[in-house]
Amino acid sequence: MSDDLTALVTGLAQRAKDASRVLANASSAQKNAVLRRAADALRGAAGDRVIEANARDMMAAEQMGLSKAMLDRLQLDRSRLDAVADGLEQVVSLPDPVGALVEERVLENGLRVGKMRAPLGLIGIIYESRPNVTADAASLCLKSGNAVLLRGGKEAFHSNTAIAEVFTQALADEGLPAEAVTLLPTTDRQATLVMIGLDGIVDMVIPRGGEGLIRFVAEHAKVPVIQHYKGVCHVFVDRSADPDMALEIALNAKVQRPGVCNAMETLLVDAAVAPTFLPKLGAAMGARGVELHADDRAAAHLNGVKPASEADWDTEYLDLILNVGVVDGIDAALEHVAKHGSNHTEAIVTKDAAHADRWLREVDASLVLVNASTRFNDGFALGLGAEIGISTTKLHAYGPMGLAELCTLKWVGQGEGQVRQ
Amino acid sequence: MSDDLTALVTGLAQRAKDASRVLANASSAQKNAVLRRAADALRGAAGDRVIEANARDMMAAEQMGLSKAMLDRLQLDRSRLDAVADGLEQVVSLPDPVGALVEERVLENGLRVGKMRAPLGLIGIIYESRPNVTADAASLCLKSGNAVLLRGGKEAFHSNTAIAEVFTQALADEGLPAEAVTLLPTTDRQATLVMIGLDGIVDMVIPRGGEGLIRFVAEHAKVPVIQHYKGVCHVFVDRSADPDMALEIALNAKVQRPGVCNAMETLLVDAAVAPTFLPKLGAAMGARGVELHADDRAAAHLNGVKPASEADWDTEYLDLILNVGVVDGIDAALEHVAKHGSNHTEAIVTKDAAHADRWLREVDASLVLVNASTRFNDGFALGLGAEIGISTTKLHAYGPMGLAELCTLKWVGQGEGQVRQ
Repeated sequence: MSDDLTALVTGLAQRAKDASRVLANASSAQKNAVLRRAADALRGAAGDRVIEANARDMMAAEQMGLSKAMLDRLQLDRSRLDAVADGLEQVVSLPDPVGALVEERVLENGLRVGKMRAPLGLIGIIYESRPNVTADAASLCLKSGNAVLLRGGKEAFHSNTAIAEVFTQALADEGLPAEAVTLLPTTDRQATLVMIGLDGIVDMVIPRGGEGLIRFVAEHAKVPVIQHYKGVCHVFVDRSADPDMALEIALNAKVQRPGVCNAMETLLVDAAVAPTFLPKLGAAMGARGVELHADDRAAAHLNGVKPASEADWDTEYLDLILNVGVVDGIDAALEHVAKHGSNHTEAIVTKDAAHADRWLREVDASLVLVNASTRFNDGFALGLGAEIGISTTKLHAYGPMGLAELCTLKWVGQGEGQVRQ
Repeated sequence: MSDDLTALVTGLAQRAKDASRVLANASSAQKNAVLRRAADALRGAAGDRVIEANARDMMAAEQMGLSKAMLDRLQLDRSRLDAVADGLEQVVSLPDPVGALVEERVLENGLRVGKMRAPLGLIGIIYESRPNVTADAASLCLKSGNAVLLRGGKEAFHSNTAIAEVFTQALADEGLPAEAVTLLPTTDRQATLVMIGLDGIVDMVIPRGGEGLIRFVAEHAKVPVIQHYKGVCHVFVDRSADPDMALEIALNAKVQRPGVCNAMETLLVDAAVAPTFLPKLGAAMGARGVELHADDRAAAHLNGVKPASEADWDTEYLDLILNVGVVDGIDAALEHVAKHGSNHTEAIVTKDAAHADRWLREVDASLVLVNASTRFNDGFALGLGAEIGISTTKLHAYGPMGLAELCTLKWVGQGEGQVRQ
């Protein structure tokens, strides 16, 4: 690894870390003013510069032969930039997590103790093609009093640089250190390696993107990583389920937005209700263009399905494809989910309170649901106001991460001279 | 690394992980029964076997020429074993964290959401000479529904093996998988390396011991590590402090138990009160045999002190030695603590509410105190009932870790057929 690159990345990270101490003590008003300035800038001349920079990225990407889907993710226009600016204003409207006191109590000796939310320090975000992540991540990190070190994708380099400049300018205009939002000036993989090795400087890294990127970061990081590999989400139709509710939930979970991680990939049905439920399911899914991969027992009640291969049960399709399996009751369903689930989102449809309770307790997933669509695993849908990602890591944060999850909880105690006996 | 050793450790860890799924769903009554059985066994014949095994460890340790302090940490006798058994019964008396619902609320669409405490899975504990850690760690992990993979010190190998057998027997007698408490049958450092590389099997590792051990684990781990390096704790005597209170807190923080991580290592005094406060402090510390290392400004008001070297300000003495420095007000004190503190415990003595508030907000430490002794940073003192260690890692847990911190919080949602619009 080149010494120059190591020194460059380390130096930038250290300056961002130094800036984080100032951000940690910035007032809510100051932080909100930065976000408002950035929103205004994106709606004005700075936004034009972002769109010009994006045009350069798009031209290069087209020459490199990127897929249409990737080009769409990369593209910024006036309406998308307005949506980014709206997002910044939404973050302004959220309560400041820093300084909030939770779990307050008074000990027998009169010491008042509790936990206070405090920023983590410097958060690293490693992401791929979408340039709007630059603004989303910067706004959530700033609002939670953290500095952010961004490593964007090479396709979006000019767009990301222009967006990051909007934030550094807004910080400077508010008298805060511009280094609190630092975009690495290189997308070299070696620079990423240096960044994720900066134990003691970078407090947490969140990789956002494909499974390959996340595995690379998890494998090589020396700093804590919050991972989100994939969502292989299940809906289990219990024998006691209301069949109409089960059908509605299954359809929503599969077809409302199939390309996202909280969409359902596998439906499990209790054998007791398979003969009545599956024909309706097959017809409804067929009408919406969903291709079904079924096990033998399910296929007996479905028309025109493919056999599910062993690998299918572990596949995140992100598409209009659904595995369907028949299981012998809730124990078999829990077994299947424990084996094939991805700790993301798991739903049961049931009228049986004991089964609902077992599902909630026994399923190990970031969101466990009774009688609701898997599509609810999302920071906006769960009322966080915004999210920086959905963690399937059990430490620190499990599920959607909002402003509170970008903070730590430090213990605080207030006494009148108490000493230890 | 030998393939045999890798296979051995991986196999044991996988079986412990499999056991963790059963433990996660064990009832409070079952888990408490295991701990009561273990306590009874330690008070009876199994305790005799532990003491015999400990005698073998002690003999070998004496032949190896271990220090008196290390021999003392290693030794188990009937009264120490009784204290271990008492500790198990105390864990029985603590509420079961698993299944507790927090942050409950109802979303606009009627979906009732909240977070439910759930075990992490398999927790790795890597520790050095004290064999009682085997019982402490096993009891806290079991009560919180986790399995535990223990790697003890080589000096305590026979003692640890005998204590672990008490737990595996108690688990088996309650119809729970004995593998939920697994002691590695080797203390080979290569085995530790395999253990801390088992991403996806071991959910969290807590190293307990010297800084060398902790750094080794942090450096090589691929699984999440909760660290606790050291405690360089400060007390800052503000210009508004009640001098009697400041003196009492300083004495308690330094001399009540100097060999522990929450003892004070450095006292900072506002220059405005140094001329009146320091002579009293010097006399009181001198009377208790405390050696003072002072900066020039403090030395002017103290007798018979050594000059503090630059390294002293970063040293965890764990002994009757104290650094004393004079600072120009709270800003300089905050600067000093940010530079030399270890994110452990930091106290201010003040009557000024604005200074108290700044200290609580601006100091980055696992426990930040106003008008109380640093010695309160301890799971028992803070009301957790027990602790597995004190984290100075900001992610997941910051400060003393009790049963709740050995759990994750998964989102749960209960609906009546809600789907995403």
